[in-house]
Amino acid sequence: MIVSFLVLLSAVIVSGDEPRLAGFTASSSTAERQWEQKFRAIPSPGNMREYMKLLSARPHHVGALADKQNAEWILGKFKEWGWDAHIESFKVLFPTPKERVAELVEPVLYKAKLDEPVLAIDPTSNQKQEQLPTYNAYSIDGDVTGPLVYVNYGLPDDYEELERLGVSVKGAIVIARYGNSWRGVKPKVAAEHGAIGCIIYSDPHEDGYFVDDVYPDGPMRPKDGVQRGSVMDFASASPGDPLTPGVGATENAQRLDLKDAKSLSKIPVQPISYGDAQPLLAALKGAVAPEAWRGALPITYHVGAPEKAGAAKVHLVVKSNWDLKPVYDVIAKLPGAVEPEHWVIRGNHEDGWVNGAEDPVSGLIALLEEARSLGELVKQGWKPRRTILYCVWDGEEPFLLGSTEWAETHAQELQEHAAVYINTDGYGRGFLNLNGSHSLEHFFNDVSREIADPESGMSVGKRLLLSQIANSSTEDAKKELRQRGDWRAAAIGSGSDFTSFVDHLGIASADVAFSGESPDGIYHSIYDDYYWYTHFADTDFAYGKALAQLAGTAVMRIADSDILPFEFTGQTDTLRTYLDEVKKLLRDRQAKVKEQNQELEEGLFTAVNDPRRPRIAPKHQEVPPFLDFSPLENALETLIQSALRYKRGIDGWALSSAGDLEQINAAMIQTERQLLSADGLPRRPWYRHMIYAPGVYTGYECKTLPGVREAIEQKQYEEANQQISETAKALLREAQAIDSATQVLTHDKH
Amino acid sequence: MIVSFLVLLSAVIVSGDEPRLAGFTASSSTAERQWEQKFRAIPSPGNMREYMKLLSARPHHVGALADKQNAEWILGKFKEWGWDAHIESFKVLFPTPKERVAELVEPVLYKAKLDEPVLAIDPTSNQKQEQLPTYNAYSIDGDVTGPLVYVNYGLPDDYEELERLGVSVKGAIVIARYGNSWRGVKPKVAAEHGAIGCIIYSDPHEDGYFVDDVYPDGPMRPKDGVQRGSVMDFASASPGDPLTPGVGATENAQRLDLKDAKSLSKIPVQPISYGDAQPLLAALKGAVAPEAWRGALPITYHVGAPEKAGAAKVHLVVKSNWDLKPVYDVIAKLPGAVEPEHWVIRGNHEDGWVNGAEDPVSGLIALLEEARSLGELVKQGWKPRRTILYCVWDGEEPFLLGSTEWAETHAQELQEHAAVYINTDGYGRGFLNLNGSHSLEHFFNDVSREIADPESGMSVGKRLLLSQIANSSTEDAKKELRQRGDWRAAAIGSGSDFTSFVDHLGIASADVAFSGESPDGIYHSIYDDYYWYTHFADTDFAYGKALAQLAGTAVMRIADSDILPFEFTGQTDTLRTYLDEVKKLLRDRQAKVKEQNQELEEGLFTAVNDPRRPRIAPKHQEVPPFLDFSPLENALETLIQSALRYKRGIDGWALSSAGDLEQINAAMIQTERQLLSADGLPRRPWYRHMIYAPGVYTGYECKTLPGVREAIEQKQYEEANQQISETAKALLREAQAIDSATQVLTHDKH
Repeated sequence: MIVSFLVLLSAVIVSGDEPRLAGFTASSSTAERQWEQKFRAIPSPGNMREYMKLLSARPHHVGALADKQNAEWILGKFKEWGWDAHIESFKVLFPTPKERVAELVEPVLYKAKLDEPVLAIDPTSNQKQEQLPTYNAYSIDGDVTGPLVYVNYGLPDDYEELERLGVSVKGAIVIARYGNSWRGVKPKVAAEHGAIGCIIYSDPHEDGYFVDDVYPDGPMRPKDGVQRGSVMDFASASPGDPLTPGVGATENAQRLDLKDAKSLSKIPVQPISYGDAQPLLAALKGAVAPEAWRGALPITYHVGAPEKAGAAKVHLVVKSNWDLKPVYDVIAKLPGAVEPEHWVIRGNHEDGWVNGAEDPVSGLIALLEEARSLGELVKQGWKPRRTILYCVWDGEEPFLLGSTEWAETHAQELQEHAAVYINTDGYGRGFLNLNGSHSLEHFFNDVSREIADPESGMSVGKRLLLSQIANSSTEDAKKELRQRGDWRAAAIGSGSDFTSFVDHLGIASADVAFSGESPDGIYHSIYDDYYWYTHFADTDFAYGKALAQLAGTAVMRIADSDILPFEFTGQTDTLRTYLDEVKKLLRDRQAKVKEQNQELEEGLFTAVNDPRRPRIAPKHQEVPPFLDFSPLENALETLIQSALRYKRGIDGWALSSAGDLEQINAAMIQTERQLLSADGLPRRPWYRHMIYAPGVYTGYECKTLPGVREAIEQKQYEEANQQISETAKALLREAQAIDSATQVLTHDKH
Repeated sequence: MIVSFLVLLSAVIVSGDEPRLAGFTASSSTAERQWEQKFRAIPSPGNMREYMKLLSARPHHVGALADKQNAEWILGKFKEWGWDAHIESFKVLFPTPKERVAELVEPVLYKAKLDEPVLAIDPTSNQKQEQLPTYNAYSIDGDVTGPLVYVNYGLPDDYEELERLGVSVKGAIVIARYGNSWRGVKPKVAAEHGAIGCIIYSDPHEDGYFVDDVYPDGPMRPKDGVQRGSVMDFASASPGDPLTPGVGATENAQRLDLKDAKSLSKIPVQPISYGDAQPLLAALKGAVAPEAWRGALPITYHVGAPEKAGAAKVHLVVKSNWDLKPVYDVIAKLPGAVEPEHWVIRGNHEDGWVNGAEDPVSGLIALLEEARSLGELVKQGWKPRRTILYCVWDGEEPFLLGSTEWAETHAQELQEHAAVYINTDGYGRGFLNLNGSHSLEHFFNDVSREIADPESGMSVGKRLLLSQIANSSTEDAKKELRQRGDWRAAAIGSGSDFTSFVDHLGIASADVAFSGESPDGIYHSIYDDYYWYTHFADTDFAYGKALAQLAGTAVMRIADSDILPFEFTGQTDTLRTYLDEVKKLLRDRQAKVKEQNQELEEGLFTAVNDPRRPRIAPKHQEVPPFLDFSPLENALETLIQSALRYKRGIDGWALSSAGDLEQINAAMIQTERQLLSADGLPRRPWYRHMIYAPGVYTGYECKTLPGVREAIEQKQYEEANQQISETAKALLREAQAIDSATQVLTHDKH
C-alpha cells in the first residue's frame, strides 16, 4: 500500500502545486494557466474541416479570384471574432506561363505532356480553367536546344562527380531530380557550369511509388503529377518581389527593370513528372550514373554523353507573362493591455499553387482556430499583456512575397516592437517539428509538455524527445538527450514566411508543425486538395487541434509573461555544437585534401580506374590553412557566462517593479537583434543574422554560423577569418544585452 | 645527366640483385626466378578463347553429354601436355526438374513463365533441348498453396522485422530476393519460421537494370533471366552428395535413404525472374516494406497481409527426378623430384548450370593454360621439388560434389600429403580477389607483386593494395594499410571447391580471381555463355592470362621452395582483429539489449509508433553475460610469439640439411591441420576448422572464429565459453607445430 500512497501523493503535488511558469510571478502564473486551459478547450476539428473545405475549394494562387476571396473571407472572420483587422496590399512581379515545351528531339521524338490528368474520384482535380499550368515561377524566358545531361540533384558535389566522369554541361540542358535543396539552386548551379536550360523532375524514389502507393490509392505522386514551384534565387539575393529588393512593394515603390532583377533564374527551367521524365532519361547514353544518383524508375540511369554523335537532345521553351499582381495580406490585432509596444506575431500563408489543402490551408486553419479561440477569451475578460498580431500572408509560394513586402515596409516598427514571430505552413500527423531561434528552445519545450499528442497519449514534447532519442545514431547522443531533458530545436533555414523576420530583422522566430507520419507526394500539384488531405493526412484534424493548442498557448504565454521567456543556456549549448562543427569542417577538409594529394602521388587513382568506365583523377589541391577561431571561442565563452548569470537571475526572480520590467523586456526583445550584422553576409547584405541563414547552395536548409561556414566551404579563408571576427562581435553584443537585463533583474542584490 | 645515370644504376641493381625468395636459398631462388619468368611468358589469351568456345559450346551440367565430353577432352589435353592424368568418377544424387509451377491464384491469376527466352543475337541461347530448366536443385518435392509474404533477403534479421510489423509466415509461401547469403539459407530460415514454400527472385536492384544495361545491350540480367542454383543446406550439414555425408560417393558406398538426407531443403523452392516476380509482388498488400527492403521494380513494395481476406495467394509445385548421376573429376599429376610426398593442389570445376562461360569456364581455361605451360617447362627440364596435382572438378554447382567426394575418399592421404590447395572458379576484369588461409597471405602478396595488371601498368599486388586503401572508410584504416605494405586477404568462406580442403581437412587454401570491373547479371542463366563473356567480361582474356600467371607462379613457388612459404605474423595480426571483433560483438549486443530495455521502460516504442503503420515493440531481453575471453587472449599471445620466433628464424635462414628440411616442411604442412578440432563445430561436426567456416545463416560468407562467434550470435553463452576454450587449444597446437619447425630451423644457434 505504501507504493500507491506515494503515487497518489506525488500526483496531488503535481496538480495542486504546478511549477511557476518561467517569466511569471506566482500569481500571474496561476492566472495564465487558467486562461491557457480555457483556450485549449476551444479549437474544434469540425471547424477546421469546414475552413479547409472552403479555403481549398478553388485554385487560390496569387492573382486568382479565390485568392482574393479567401483573404476577404478571412478578414471577415477576424472581425467577427473581435479582432482589429485589415488587408494590406502590395503589387508584385508574378510571372505566369505563356508557352511551355519540353521535348526530346533526338534520338527519338518525345513531347512531354506537362499536364496533370483529372481523376474522377477527386472532385477538385477537374478545375482546369483555374489551375496554373505546371511551371517554375521566375524562370527566365528562353527557347533552347541542346544535349541532355542527368545531374542527379544538380548540386555542386554532383558537378564534381560529373567532372570525374569527364562530362561537361556546357551548352547542355540538364535534367535534375527534385530534392535535397531549394529547387532554385538547381538551375543556379547548372547555369554556373554553363548549362543553357534546366528540367526538374520528381523521381518516384523521392515522392512516388518507391515511398508508398500512389494517389488516389495512396498518398504519393502519380506518374503524371508535377511539382510546381518557384525557382527564385532568394538565398543569393533576397526573397520577396524581385523588383523591389529591400523595400516594400507598395503601389508607388521604385521598381527595377525586369532585366536588372537579380533573383530570377539565369536559364529557362521547367518541371516535369516522372511519366514525362522516363523517356528522356532512358534516351541517355554515356557512363552509368553513380549508385547514389539512381532513382526508382525501371531503367538504367546514365549521365549522358553530350559530346558524342547521336546523344539525346532536348528542346526547351519557357515563356511567361511578366505581370504585376496584387497580394493581399490580412493583418489582425489584439492590443496589449500593459506593454502594447511589444508585439507577438503569428503567421501562416493563404495562397497555394493550386487548391493547396495541405500547403498552406492545413496550417492556416489551425491559425484561424487559434484566432477564434483567443477572440473568445477576450470576450471572457482575458487581456493580453502585450499586443498580438495574427497575419495571413499572400504570395508565399512565388517566394514569401506578402510577408517580405510587409516586413520590409514595416521594418523599423518591427525592429522596435516585435518580440517573437511564430510561423506555421501546413502540417501532417506525427511529431512536433520545430525550427527556431535557440533562445526560444527551452520555452517551446515547456509549452510542448502541456500539449497532448493525439496518438500516443503522452505530451507532444515527450514524444518528440523520445523520437529524437530513437533517431540518435550513437549511444553518446542518446545519453546526452536523456540528461538534457529538452528536445533539440533545429536551426531555422528558409522556405516559409519567417525568413524576413529572423534573417533580415533579427526577430526571434519559430516555425512549428507536426510531421513524419503522413508521407506526401502531392506537393504543389493539383492533387493537394481536400480529398487527398481528408483521406491521407490528418484525416480527423486531431493534429490540427494540437497545432492550434501549441501555437496558441505559445502566443498567449509570450504575450502574457511578466518577463519575456527567452532562455540562453540552451542557445549557448547549441552554439557550442555549431562552433565545433565549423572547426571540424575545416579539419575534415584539410585531412581530405591531404589524403587526396597523397593518393594522387601514390597512384591510387590509376589503380582504381577502370579503363572501360574511366574516371578522371581529381587535381592536386592546396591544403586549407589553419584559421584563428579564438575570437569566436572567447566570445562564446563570454556569452555562456552571460547566459548562466541571467539564468541564475531569472531562476531566483520573484517580482520586479513596472519600471524594471520595462527595462528587462526592452533588453530581452533586443537580444536576437544583436545577432544582426549591419553589413550583412558577404555578397548578400539582405541577410544579416550571423547565426542562421539559408545556404546559398541549399536554400531551405540552414547554414549555421553562415559567414564562417560558407567561407570555409567556398575556400575563402581570408573571408572566413573576417567572418569569425564579425560573428564574435555579434555574440558579444548579445552578451551585453543579456547582461543589461541581468543587472536590472538582480539589482537589489548589488 | 646524373639523374639518368642513377635511374639506370638502380634499374641494374633491381634486376641484378633481386631479393631472395622466402623459403629459398640464394641459388635456388635465382633458379626459381628464371623458371617462373619462362613460365609467365607462355599462357596465351588466344588459347583461352579457343578453350572457352569449345568448353561452353553446349550445356554441361552434371549428367549432360557435354559434361562428360568436356572431362574427356580435358583428360586428353593433360596427357598431351605431359601430365599423368586420369578420371575419377563418383555416383551422386542429382535431382532434375519434373514439374514446376509458381502461380498467383488470388486476387488475380498470373502463371509465372519460368522460362528464359532465346535471343537471336546469342547463338547458344537456343539450345533448349539441352538446357536444364530454371530450378533450385535439392528443393524437396511439394505442392503447396498459401498466402504470399515478401521477406526481403529472407535472413533472420528480416524475420525480426516482420515480427515488428506483426506479420507471421506460418503457413505462408515466402518470396525472397536473391543476394546477401547462400540461396539455400532463404528456404532454411523460411521453414524455421513456419513457411510452407519459398520463391526466390532476382531483383533488378541486385543484378538487373539498376546496375547497368541489360543483356544483350549490357551485362545485366534481362527481365526473364533466372538464377538457377543449389539450395543444399551444406553449412548446417555438409557439402557434397547428400546421401554419403563424410565419405566418398564411390560406386559401392553406403547410401542414406533420400528421406534421411539432411542437406535437402525443408520446403519446396523455386527461382523466378523479375519479370515473373513483379505481378506477385505488386499483388501484395499490408505494410509498406521497410526502405532497405525495397528493390528496383517500379512498384510499391509491400510485405503482404497473409491473414487478411483477399490476400495475395500463390500455388507452388516443385517435383524432381531424384536420380543418381556420375560426376567425372579429372586428376592430373606432375611428380615431385625431391619431396614427392608433399602435394600442391590446384583446382577449378568444369560443370556449369547451362553453358557456363564465366562460371566456371573462365577460371578453368586459366587453369588449363597453367597446366600446358607447366608441361612445357617440364619438357625444358624443370623438375618441381614437390608433387603438383591439377584437378578439374565436376558437380560443383549442385554443391561441390566432385571435390567433396574426392576429398572425402582421399581424406587420409590428403591430410598426410597436402601442403596447399589453390582454387579458382571464374573471373572477370579488375582487382585481384583472394580469400584464403592467412598463413598464405604474405606469400600471395609476394607473388602478386610480380604479376603485371593488364590495365593499370602496375603490379596486381600494388593495384590491390591501393584499391584497399581507396575502399577504407577511415583515415586510420588507410594509414594501417600503408604501414603494413601487404594487402589483406579476406577470410575463406564457402561457395566453391576449396571447402572440403580447408574446412574439413585443414589444408591451407586460397581462392583467387580477378573481379570488380565486369558486373555480371547472367549468373546461372542461359546467357552465361561465350557471346556474353566475349562482349562484356574479359573480352581479350588479358586477365585470364594474368590469372594463369598468378596461380601458376604460386603453384611453382610453393612446389619448389626449400621451405614451404607459410608466414604467421600476418596470420596473427589478422587473428587479433577477429578476436577484437567477437569481443566487440558481445559488447555491442550487451549495449543494444540494455538500450532496448531502457527504451521499453521509457515508452520510446509507444512514442515512435504510428498507429496507422503500427510496429510492435520488441520484447524485454536478458542482457548477455560477460564471457571469459582470456584463454583465447593467452593462446593468441603464445601464437604471436611463435610466429615472431619463426619469422626471425626464417629471415636469418640460409641453408639446412636435407634432413632438417624434411622436418621443417613436415611441421609446416601440419600447421593448418592443428587448427582442426576433432569434434568439429557444434551441431556440424563435418566442419572442423576453428578459424574459418561458412556461417550457418550466411553460407558463402565466412564466420571467423566460428564456434565462438556463432554461439554469441545465437545466444548460446555456455557454448561460447566452451568454444573459446576449444579455439584456444587449436591456436596452441598451431604454435607448437610452428615452434617445432623453428627449433630445427635455428638449432645451430642453440
